[in-house]
Amino acid sequence: MIYLDHAAATPVSAKVLEAMQPYFGVDFFNPSAAYLPAKKVAADYEKAKGVIAHAIGAKASDLIITAGATEANNLAFTAVYDYKSAGSDVSRHAPSRPSSRGSVATTCPQPVAHCLKTSDSCAHILYLTTEHDSVRQVAEGLGGIAINVLPNGLIDLKDLQAKITDDTQLISVSLVNNELGTIQPLAEIAEIVRTTKIDRMKRGIKTQLLLHSDASQALNLLDINVARLGVDLLTLNAAKVYGPKGVGALYVSHNARLRPLVVGGGQEKGLRSGTENVPGVIGFAKAVELAKEHLNGNRKKYALWRKSLLSELKDYELINKKHCLDNFVVVSFPGLDAERLIFLLEEKNVYVATGAACAASKGEKSHVLKAIGLSDLQIAGSLRLTLGETNTEEQIRDAARIINDVVSLEHRRINKNKD
Amino acid sequence: MIYLDHAAATPVSAKVLEAMQPYFGVDFFNPSAAYLPAKKVAADYEKAKGVIAHAIGAKASDLIITAGATEANNLAFTAVYDYKSAGSDVSRHAPSRPSSRGSVATTCPQPVAHCLKTSDSCAHILYLTTEHDSVRQVAEGLGGIAINVLPNGLIDLKDLQAKITDDTQLISVSLVNNELGTIQPLAEIAEIVRTTKIDRMKRGIKTQLLLHSDASQALNLLDINVARLGVDLLTLNAAKVYGPKGVGALYVSHNARLRPLVVGGGQEKGLRSGTENVPGVIGFAKAVELAKEHLNGNRKKYALWRKSLLSELKDYELINKKHCLDNFVVVSFPGLDAERLIFLLEEKNVYVATGAACAASKGEKSHVLKAIGLSDLQIAGSLRLTLGETNTEEQIRDAARIINDVVSLEHRRINKNKD
Repeated sequence: MIYLDHAAATPVSAKVLEAMQPYFGVDFFNPSAAYLPAKKVAADYEKAKGVIAHAIGAKASDLIITAGATEANNLAFTAVYDYKSAGSDVSRHAPSRPSSRGSVATTCPQPVAHCLKTSDSCAHILYLTTEHDSVRQVAEGLGGIAINVLPNGLIDLKDLQAKITDDTQLISVSLVNNELGTIQPLAEIAEIVRTTKIDRMKRGIKTQLLLHSDASQALNLLDINVARLGVDLLTLNAAKVYGPKGVGALYVSHNARLRPLVVGGGQEKGLRSGTENVPGVIGFAKAVELAKEHLNGNRKKYALWRKSLLSELKDYELINKKHCLDNFVVVSFPGLDAERLIFLLEEKNVYVATGAACAASKGEKSHVLKAIGLSDLQIAGSLRLTLGETNTEEQIRDAARIINDVVSLEHRRINKNKD
Repeated sequence: MIYLDHAAATPVSAKVLEAMQPYFGVDFFNPSAAYLPAKKVAADYEKAKGVIAHAIGAKASDLIITAGATEANNLAFTAVYDYKSAGSDVSRHAPSRPSSRGSVATTCPQPVAHCLKTSDSCAHILYLTTEHDSVRQVAEGLGGIAINVLPNGLIDLKDLQAKITDDTQLISVSLVNNELGTIQPLAEIAEIVRTTKIDRMKRGIKTQLLLHSDASQALNLLDINVARLGVDLLTLNAAKVYGPKGVGALYVSHNARLRPLVVGGGQEKGLRSGTENVPGVIGFAKAVELAKEHLNGNRKKYALWRKSLLSELKDYELINKKHCLDNFVVVSFPGLDAERLIFLLEEKNVYVATGAACAASKGEKSHVLKAIGLSDLQIAGSLRLTLGETNTEEQIRDAARIINDVVSLEHRRINKNKD
C-alpha cells in the first residue's frame, strides 16, 4: 500500500500509542477526583498540555483542549462577542468560579449559544476564502467577509488591508492550507494587525482586533511560535501529526476572551467542560514531541521526495508551485477525471485524494482550487498527494511510475473513444 | 488498591482496548476519504454506532456521536429553539445538504450560537434539581425551572405536573443520578409528557414537548430501551461503562430537531462536525456489547456486595436507601468530615468520593444531597462508594473493615479532643 493522503489522516505512531496505553486501563482516574492517583493523572495531563504548548512557545494555561481542530476553530470565533450591544448580558452572568486547577476562568459560565448575538448585530470578521469548512462555515454564519487569495494561493494582502474596517474584530487565516499546503505569511498579516491596532489606539477606537490561525496541517513541518507568528488564537490538531483522532487544542492569548460552546463541570478553565480525554492529550503531547524532534529531517526528506515526484511524473500541471509545505504535491491532469484516477490508482494500491476529504465526500468542487483561479478542466483533473511517515523513497518512485501508467492509459482510452 | 469510585471513572476494559487497537495505527483512514480502505473504516464506524444504538433499541442513524456526555447534554438542549420568534431566521438558512453517509440532515448549517435566541425569548425548560452540572448549567442558562425531588431522591411527580405549562418545550431528567444512583421513573414521566401532548393537541397548541434523559451512569446496569422509556433525547457516555474517555452519544428521536454546537465538514448529519473519532467509537461499541452481556450477572453481584457492605459497615446512616443502582452505596457519618475520611482511606489504599468528581474538586457542597434534604452535618460526613469491575468480593469485605477502622479512629480522635 502506498498511502499518499497524509493531509486527510495520519496513523497514530507506535511511540504515541505506547505513551497512551497506561492511561486507558491503569491511570484511568478522573483528573477531578480528590485522591492522589487521580491527582497524579491530573498532573500528567497538565504536563502533556505543557509539552504541546511549549512546542508553539506557549504555556499549558494558554491551551484549551478540544475534541479536534473543528471544535477549536469554532471555539476561536466565540472571541467575537459584541461587547457593546451585549453589555447588559455580560453583567447578568454570575462571576466565574475559580477552576479546580490553574488560573481563574475569564468567561461567563453560560454557553456561547446564549451569549452570542444574532445577525442583527454581526461582528465584523475577515477570513481567507480558502479556509477549511470548519472556519468558513462559522465565519459565514457570523456574516464574515472573505479575503481573496492570489493565483499562487497566498493571501492577497492588499485585499486584506482594503477590507479591514474600524469594526473588524477577528481575522482568520490558516497557517497552512489543507488542500494546497500553501504557507500563509502570518507574520506579515500580524504586522498589518499591529499597525491597525496602533492606528485605532491613536484614534481612541477600542474595538478588539484578533488574529486566528488554523495550524492543523503545520505542526509537524513548521517551527511554530505564537509570538513570532503574532497570532492571538491558534488551532492545533493531534490527528494530522500522527497523534490520536478526537483531540485538538486552541491556543488563546491573554488578549482574547472566549465563551464556552459546552458548559458543565468547568474543565479547561470553564471554556470546555467534560471529563478530560487524558489518553488523547498524552498521545497528542508525544506526537508533538516526535514532530519537533524530526522536524528538520522530515522537511529535507519530503523536499527531496517532492522534487523526485515532480521530475518523474509526466503530462501534469503543477498547481502548488511555491510557498507550500514540502509534503504537499498538487498536480492536475487536465482532460482527465480525478475521481476516475483515484479509483484506478486504488486498484494498484496507491491512495490519493482530490481535496479535503470531508468536502470531497460530498461531491463538491474544491472551493480552494476555484479560488486560485483554476479552470473547471484543471479542477476536474486535480490530485492532491500528501507525503508522510508511512512512505519510503522506493514508494515515491513506484507511485510516480504507477501514476504515469494510469494517466497514460486514461489518455489512450479517451483518445480511442474519440476515434 | 481498592477503587470504589466507578461513578467518576472506569478503566478501559482489556477487550475494549483490544478492539480499538487496529484503528489507531492500521485502519486509521479518514472515514470521509474516497478510497476503499477509508470506506471500510467508515463502515466499521457506522457498524459500531449500530451496536451502541441497538443496545438502547435505536438505529445507528438516531445517534449523534460527541466527545462525551457533557457535550451530548449540551447538544440536547439545542432542541429548544424558539421556532415561533425565530421563524425568519430559519428560512434564511441555506437548505441542509445531504450528508456523505446516511440520511439527510434536518438542521441548518449554522452553529447554534447564531441561531438560539437569548433570554428575552427564553424557551420553557424543566429540569430535575439533582441533575449533573452539564445539564443544570445549560438549563439554568436558558432560564429553566428546577423540579423538586422527594427525600428519597426520586422526582416529585406532582411538582413536575404543577410546573408544566403550555409553553414547556423540554423536560430533562437523568435516568440515574450520578451522586446517589437513584433511578428515576422515566416511563411515568413519559406518560405525563404523553398526556400533556394529547391535551395540547386537542386544544390546538402546537408547542413541542420533548423528554431528555442523561443515562451516562445507567448503560451497564439497566436494560435501556428508548421506546419503553419514552424519551426523545438520551445521553450516553463511554467513559462510565469501561469504554474510552472523550466519547459519548446523543440519541435523537424523529420528534427532535437539533442545531449543531460545532460546524464544519458536516459529519454526524451536520450536527457535529469534525473527523470521526473512530477508535473511540469502536471502543464505545465494544464496551456497550460487554455491558449488555454481563448486565444481569453484574447487577446480582453488585446487589450482593452492596448488601454485604451495608451489613458490615458500622455507625453509618444510609442515604440512598431505595430506587438506586446496585453499585451505588452512599453513606453518611454525621459528625465526621468526609474530606478527612477520603484522605485517611487513601492512606490505606481505599479510594472513595464525596460526590461528583467535578463538583467535589471545586470544594462545593453537593447540590444533590442538599436537594434531598440532608443536614449540613449529614452532607459533610457523606461518602459515595461506587462498586465496579475492578472490585472483588474480598475487596468489598476489606473495604468495610478499613472504613470501620478509619471511622472509629476518627470518632476516638474527636472525642479525645472534646475531653
